[in-house]
Amino acid sequence: MTASGSAALGIDVGGTTFGVVLLDAEGRVVSTAEDATPQGVPPAVAVKMVAECARAVAARAGVGSRDLAGVGLAVPGSIDAARGILRFSPNLPGWRDVPVAALAAEILDAPVALEHDVRMAAFGESRRGAGVGAASFVCVTIGTGIGAALVIEGHLYRGATDAAGEIGHMPIVADGERCGCGRRGCLETVASGRAIAARVRAIEGRAQDDSMTAQDVFRAAAAGDPACVGVVADALAALGAGLTVLVNVLNPDVIAIGGGVASSGAALFDPLRAIVRASAWPPAAEVARIVPAALGTRAGAIGVALFAAEVRRGC
Amino acid sequence: MTASGSAALGIDVGGTTFGVVLLDAEGRVVSTAEDATPQGVPPAVAVKMVAECARAVAARAGVGSRDLAGVGLAVPGSIDAARGILRFSPNLPGWRDVPVAALAAEILDAPVALEHDVRMAAFGESRRGAGVGAASFVCVTIGTGIGAALVIEGHLYRGATDAAGEIGHMPIVADGERCGCGRRGCLETVASGRAIAARVRAIEGRAQDDSMTAQDVFRAAAAGDPACVGVVADALAALGAGLTVLVNVLNPDVIAIGGGVASSGAALFDPLRAIVRASAWPPAAEVARIVPAALGTRAGAIGVALFAAEVRRGC
Repeated sequence: MTASGSAALGIDVGGTTFGVVLLDAEGRVVSTAEDATPQGVPPAVAVKMVAECARAVAARAGVGSRDLAGVGLAVPGSIDAARGILRFSPNLPGWRDVPVAALAAEILDAPVALEHDVRMAAFGESRRGAGVGAASFVCVTIGTGIGAALVIEGHLYRGATDAAGEIGHMPIVADGERCGCGRRGCLETVASGRAIAARVRAIEGRAQDDSMTAQDVFRAAAAGDPACVGVVADALAALGAGLTVLVNVLNPDVIAIGGGVASSGAALFDPLRAIVRASAWPPAAEVARIVPAALGTRAGAIGVALFAAEVRRGC
Repeated sequence: MTASGSAALGIDVGGTTFGVVLLDAEGRVVSTAEDATPQGVPPAVAVKMVAECARAVAARAGVGSRDLAGVGLAVPGSIDAARGILRFSPNLPGWRDVPVAALAAEILDAPVALEHDVRMAAFGESRRGAGVGAASFVCVTIGTGIGAALVIEGHLYRGATDAAGEIGHMPIVADGERCGCGRRGCLETVASGRAIAARVRAIEGRAQDDSMTAQDVFRAAAAGDPACVGVVADALAALGAGLTVLVNVLNPDVIAIGGGVASSGAALFDPLRAIVRASAWPPAAEVARIVPAALGTRAGAIGVALFAAEVRRGC
């Protein structure tokens, strides 16, 4: 297995779709693909199908395994990065102790780095997106769940057991709603995309309607819908408290926010900035720029491609 | 000015006392001194008096400026480390824009590194105390105020503007008491040593009795005094919430707690460990060891001596 070239290949496998990006030596996106994550097949088969797609993306650009500086694959859930194993993932039911890196490496004829998707989105943003030039960079992803990752002076910070940045399970609401993790009042119970939509459905007695998104709720709140106004206010207060903590503890230059909920734009960012200004320690609050993530849905794939290439180059 | 030897000299100037330590090449304490911080003289004179004491400590051990690998001076408050200036300090009234490093260097005939006392206590603990061997180390000081500092893989983490670790002003109590910083419900308003003692005095109508310490309150709570039981319970709940945040965001190996309040021992540590186990994200909570700081009141002086020596050696 050789990977001595200058291109980089990144694969981001989510619960419903996966994305592939091919980057050139300067980290520019050369080619991309996106498709549904294979369902109804064993995880090992699904991984190989995804890797075949990635190989085809590279081949179409005339890039073979020898031309690659690195190949990375990002997944949600708990991973053993050193061994390239996905332990389990709430978003990929049935995937348990899957040797994802080895399976993909077989198809791609190159070593594959397995990493966590929220971390890789942060890494991508730090190198090519909203975090470029920030010495202390936090990237928060607000989607189905809420996660954060820290890039400090260009280095991904993992913590003692690869669990740093778990802000989604920060206790925010005293005696709040029960969280999927078993405790009560976690940030995710009021501020994740799933929670925002579910809380409006519960108020409106439309528990079966799962077509509504958090973005719909933000739009309805802006139009004055009372249930949506209340749910959005709760979400903003909780997110503001979470960001305040990040600012006080980490004193970052930049906090980027990505994920589906971040697409709500000024209706999200203006109140969050105001809460942080009012609540966080002033010397830290004054400098922390709270901005939208810049790489969109490709952040994870771009990040893991760059990460794999840097690791291979020994950076 | 030369500083090419192997010994290290550390000075920690607090609001009421200052301490000096002389370390040998292996970082062992060779000699110490402690005295009242000079009052009623201009800050520049006070700095020179403190530096004279430090010079005498070194001279008594036969150590001159040429034998020193580094000299450091730690202070509370806001500093400009690069220029060696203390901007201001709530604990050193009247000290404003004092060129502490230059004043001390004149007396000691060696470059002096000016640093923040809570950070230097953390650095000392990371090198010679409770944080030895920890890849992700947090040191929390609970005294008159509450501060924290992070040492990540051996490196002091400062944040974007040298303000990281400001957990004392984390909003913890909704609509809580007014804090010295102007906002309400900060961690310090219920859990600092000063707040613990003041809250009991307020309940007991003994507002003028300032001899009671937080340790006295912990002892009285253990003996069943109702006012003290309530105040201690509030402090523990708030500190537990603060530590939970640190565990979720940073996933540290070790959190050491120092400062006067930490001397309350198991009455402090047992409840805090239980709160973190119950509230923090389990994969992070399981590994975070919450332990007493090991270097006592000399942590800051030891830390700044080691820090100065490492900086001089180019580590």
